[in-house]
Amino acid sequence: MLKVGVIGCGYWGPNLIRNFSQLRRTDVTLVADLDDDRLSHMKKLYPTIETTKDYRKIIENPEIDIVAVATPVHTHYKFASEALSSGKNVFIEKPMTASVNEAEDLIRLSEKHHRKLMVGHTFEYTSAVRKMKEIIDAGELGDIYYISSQRLNLGLFQQDINVIWDLAPHDISIILYLLGQEPVSVSAIGSSHINPLIEDVAVLSMQFSNNLIAFVQTSWLDPDKIRKMTVVGSKKMMVYDDVQPSEKIRVYDKGVDVPRHYDTFAEFHYSYKYGDIVIPKIDGSEPLQTELDHFIDCILNDEKPISDGNSGLRVIKILEASQKSLNEGNKPVSTG
Amino acid sequence: MLKVGVIGCGYWGPNLIRNFSQLRRTDVTLVADLDDDRLSHMKKLYPTIETTKDYRKIIENPEIDIVAVATPVHTHYKFASEALSSGKNVFIEKPMTASVNEAEDLIRLSEKHHRKLMVGHTFEYTSAVRKMKEIIDAGELGDIYYISSQRLNLGLFQQDINVIWDLAPHDISIILYLLGQEPVSVSAIGSSHINPLIEDVAVLSMQFSNNLIAFVQTSWLDPDKIRKMTVVGSKKMMVYDDVQPSEKIRVYDKGVDVPRHYDTFAEFHYSYKYGDIVIPKIDGSEPLQTELDHFIDCILNDEKPISDGNSGLRVIKILEASQKSLNEGNKPVSTG
Amino acid sequence: MLKVGVIGCGYWGPNLIRNFSQLRRTDVTLVADLDDDRLSHMKKLYPTIETTKDYRKIIENPEIDIVAVATPVHTHYKFASEALSSGKNVFIEKPMTASVNEAEDLIRLSEKHHRKLMVGHTFEYTSAVRKMKEIIDAGELGDIYYISSQRLNLGLFQQDINVIWDLAPHDISIILYLLGQEPVSVSAIGSSHINPLIEDVAVLSMQFSNNLIAFVQTSWLDPDKIRKMTVVGSKKMMVYDDVQPSEKIRVYDKGVDVPRHYDTFAEFHYSYKYGDIVIPKIDGSEPLQTELDHFIDCILNDEKPISDGNSGLRVIKILEASQKSLNEGNKPVSTG
Amino acid sequence: MLKVGVIGCGYWGPNLIRNFSQLRRTDVTLVADLDDDRLSHMKKLYPTIETTKDYRKIIENPEIDIVAVATPVHTHYKFASEALSSGKNVFIEKPMTASVNEAEDLIRLSEKHHRKLMVGHTFEYTSAVRKMKEIIDAGELGDIYYISSQRLNLGLFQQDINVIWDLAPHDISIILYLLGQEPVSVSAIGSSHINPLIEDVAVLSMQFSNNLIAFVQTSWLDPDKIRKMTVVGSKKMMVYDDVQPSEKIRVYDKGVDVPRHYDTFAEFHYSYKYGDIVIPKIDGSEPLQTELDHFIDCILNDEKPISDGNSGLRVIKILEASQKSLNEGNKPVSTG
Repeated sequence: MLKVGVIGCGYWGPNLIRNFSQLRRTDVTLVADLDDDRLSHMKKLYPTIETTKDYRKIIENPEIDIVAVATPVHTHYKFASEALSSGKNVFIEKPMTASVNEAEDLIRLSEKHHRKLMVGHTFEYTSAVRKMKEIIDAGELGDIYYISSQRLNLGLFQQDINVIWDLAPHDISIILYLLGQEPVSVSAIGSSHINPLIEDVAVLSMQFSNNLIAFVQTSWLDPDKIRKMTVVGSKKMMVYDDVQPSEKIRVYDKGVDVPRHYDTFAEFHYSYKYGDIVIPKIDGSEPLQTELDHFIDCILNDEKPISDGNSGLRVIKILEASQKSLNEGNKPVSTG
Repeated sequence: MLKVGVIGCGYWGPNLIRNFSQLRRTDVTLVADLDDDRLSHMKKLYPTIETTKDYRKIIENPEIDIVAVATPVHTHYKFASEALSSGKNVFIEKPMTASVNEAEDLIRLSEKHHRKLMVGHTFEYTSAVRKMKEIIDAGELGDIYYISSQRLNLGLFQQDINVIWDLAPHDISIILYLLGQEPVSVSAIGSSHINPLIEDVAVLSMQFSNNLIAFVQTSWLDPDKIRKMTVVGSKKMMVYDDVQPSEKIRVYDKGVDVPRHYDTFAEFHYSYKYGDIVIPKIDGSEPLQTELDHFIDCILNDEKPISDGNSGLRVIKILEASQKSLNEGNKPVSTG
Repeated sequence: MLKVGVIGCGYWGPNLIRNFSQLRRTDVTLVADLDDDRLSHMKKLYPTIETTKDYRKIIENPEIDIVAVATPVHTHYKFASEALSSGKNVFIEKPMTASVNEAEDLIRLSEKHHRKLMVGHTFEYTSAVRKMKEIIDAGELGDIYYISSQRLNLGLFQQDINVIWDLAPHDISIILYLLGQEPVSVSAIGSSHINPLIEDVAVLSMQFSNNLIAFVQTSWLDPDKIRKMTVVGSKKMMVYDDVQPSEKIRVYDKGVDVPRHYDTFAEFHYSYKYGDIVIPKIDGSEPLQTELDHFIDCILNDEKPISDGNSGLRVIKILEASQKSLNEGNKPVSTG
Repeated sequence: MLKVGVIGCGYWGPNLIRNFSQLRRTDVTLVADLDDDRLSHMKKLYPTIETTKDYRKIIENPEIDIVAVATPVHTHYKFASEALSSGKNVFIEKPMTASVNEAEDLIRLSEKHHRKLMVGHTFEYTSAVRKMKEIIDAGELGDIYYISSQRLNLGLFQQDINVIWDLAPHDISIILYLLGQEPVSVSAIGSSHINPLIEDVAVLSMQFSNNLIAFVQTSWLDPDKIRKMTVVGSKKMMVYDDVQPSEKIRVYDKGVDVPRHYDTFAEFHYSYKYGDIVIPKIDGSEPLQTELDHFIDCILNDEKPISDGNSGLRVIKILEASQKSLNEGNKPVSTG
């Protein structure tokens, strides 16, 4: 039985605690947070777990095998680097770090200490995203022309990172996972309304080779909760709507030609024609469980996690480039 | 009874013919097109209308008061300038012309010959857009933070103009109408997949003063037919979904704070909270009829059309700037 | 060129006039109505058509080949029987007549005078309903277990017929067409709120042999506009949503077993599982045009219309039985 | 701290265990089930809880204050009557019992032993249903004309009860709660396809005084997961869509008159007119928590639960009458 220590039980931490508790091969031993209320709430929910306000109790506990970090982004590096240096396997919430330098350093530490480093790109472990990758890899869509993604809601405002750093890591990690390649350049445009220093609405563009382009629109201010990704290929098109409870993916066959002439306004409604649409059955297991199970497998079998440190680094590179583009008036920034 | 000649009865022309025929104050006298099949089809539908393959028959007919131009964009200037010079009132489909120079010349001709020039910004005549303007002008939304618009479908591919020129004029004209101001700069990013010279997917950004930004996403390749505009303000938010048959506008009250902590994945679903949503009743008259009626009023009462030549010009300025931004690697282009 | 006379240009008549005008093989000669405004409006729309307040002008006109009847139900028999007796081919809007006796008499007259009698069961001519029949006839759904249909809206209140007579003929004609069999008994339950003598909300049940049952729910008082039919079979299920502009039919593969145990409220959301869903492409031609074209074919080639007098009679039998069930406290009424 | 024993941890029991564990004023002491796997799974999730295969351990434990029964319906009476007789407060899942006699006996026992008896009509504790009651009680809808409800899905097939007994208790308890009155008669029609003795699709009608009628459609075979209730009143209408994650209730203002005449097929789409629609903000707390908190309040303050034994009995009366109607060929059965 692997012992888990969790640093941070605010927003996402409780999900990690619940899942590590329910998995057969792990037990949560210790939870650290600065907030007494959160700690006593965790204690009520999981009476057998110990709590502490001092994260070092976790780092220094020799029985603990895994440290899970679910704290604000700017603290990720500190907790993760200390944990790796103490010989712990480390699971970090996304985005992995606040800079490329920090990410590279964590990868180095994990290699030096022969410990696993994994970042919580949860979507790579969902049945829906895996089904999409399966469809793309089978060539069903043909050549990919573009991917367009929206992640919008009236959301949790972050104090330390902008809306791209907060929301786009999901989309970026999904897109890199689906395409298996990195962009050659990135540009971003956004604006700030609530906090003048932090963009709360933004569009990120990633230019890949082969004329492939990806757009990611993010907002903390939108009335609709939208989490939607469209993948347009030369043969078929695919829409992933994560807000749908069950029908998450639709595959559209290319349609016949649109009629060129319209005699009445009514026929206008008839004119958008496609081929058949297929909504494939998606297995509905909780992705976080799949993700943590995979992490445990990697530790026990000494294998490389799908969303390992390098996967985290690739996302941070794009986030850093997007920040540079925002600062430099929207101009494309090379990520090559 | 005003006599109307229509040049072009391919895609949109038949709608003009039908509406000018049904209005009490106009009769369609003559229709010109190069395609015999289209002309004979029009003849079958409207037995009393004459047809011709020579558009000059319309320009030179002294009985005709109004010339409606529904042809490809690069021909608009030629037909409209000849018609104005012959003393006709001219109605042109959007976008008004292929360049700022052409637009300015048509405005000049209409002033010189004292004839009305109107561009078919149909959406400015819909009950939905007018309702939105009413709501904005009443201050209900507070300060406008941003507008985000999507006009996507698997569409009619144009041969002579890119997807921004084809689809964005609708969104641009609506946005300018709603805001009553012009952007200070424009940038655009897009890519070409079907025809290497013509962008078929693109995002246009318009930077206004006061930190207000507007995004317009356009595509001819998207599987979903989406025509949606979100207006986010400091007090309320508004979504206009033109694809909905009846519930086109939603006004969202700002919600209470989102709970900061989550203990189970289930509660996650409960966490996006807003205030009440109101879907105001929208009058459903056909906008084209309202638009043409307004044009007739302006002719008979010698008034300035809402979507006059200057309105058309403002849109063309933005389209031309977007083209420049696309050509110059996505950099912002001033429209001041 | 067949000449058409249309009796009634209130609600549905204008659609008949428009379609008969546009078809290559017919011309509308004469339109009769008691309302001067309606007649002059038709004259404005179709300048070449003559109008009259005396329907006998149509019956007695020797040049007229087809009489189309689009008047209130209780007058159908009178106009249709006179037209058939004068040697006209007759097209009647649904429901065909106000009683089984009238329907049988019209069938007799059409046979005696060797003229075609067709009832406007328009849905049998839609691509969507034909696609459904194709899927059912191919055995794709397996044995049909039940059909459930809803036709609800805040509607046009009828003065002379209840909501079942007004709305259910659509569903009944579709169901009989799909199944190719008639029910053995019918029951109905409803209530009246606006006019105490006329049911404005009702549920009709039709019991077929083989344990197959069909429900039709109708309302003039419902806030949602719903036109939806679910066909549940032993192998697959099919939903027909006529309100959707394009995705009208969905075919659901049967799903795997539902998990029996739930540990958190969250998993509950994951538990409804099905197989793939297919949304077949539906051709979008206007059904009324297909229907009238078929009528013209039947006249010219002396063939039996799909929705002939007997088809109309089968629907009237069920409507009459539903009325009896309503009057006799909801008890099943045999239609054998 | 009240001690809770839970009998049954298959489908719904785990939700009770989770909620009683998380509440401040209760602790789950003992869980009984016949299935070893389920018990060990509960033990993994809640390490401090004891488990047993002998439910008498719960009944006989003098420390236990509350017995929660989450077993198949036909066993409810046995467990609940023994628990009440041993001086326990009893919470039973819906439907409360398998017969009116059993329900009346449990009420008698709870009164005799001065213990609280509450049935899990969870929906009466949801914010959405309470909001609906608030709106109705304020007279906003005017006189209620009818309620129409659908509870459909491809579901868990029950072995011992039909689809009405399984699904309709939710709708019935909501409807009785909203209206504050009981029906005068009930009729039901259904059919059986999977198990020839158990109806798997059915429509239940409840006739109330004042011409008010309620329909409840249930199915275990439907491809769509639908949980929708429409309340139509003389002034306004209300739709409750429980499948929606956030916008659960819509209140529709009555619309203006529908235009009587249609000239083109297009205008048909414009003709369904209503007034404004309001989607009130609904508080999203987990209803089961609210329900169990209320039960604890009632025990501690000696108050009558909202969904007490009599509330359970009222639902069982209607279920029993529906069974009689099904057995007697659909005829109305008095519940007076």
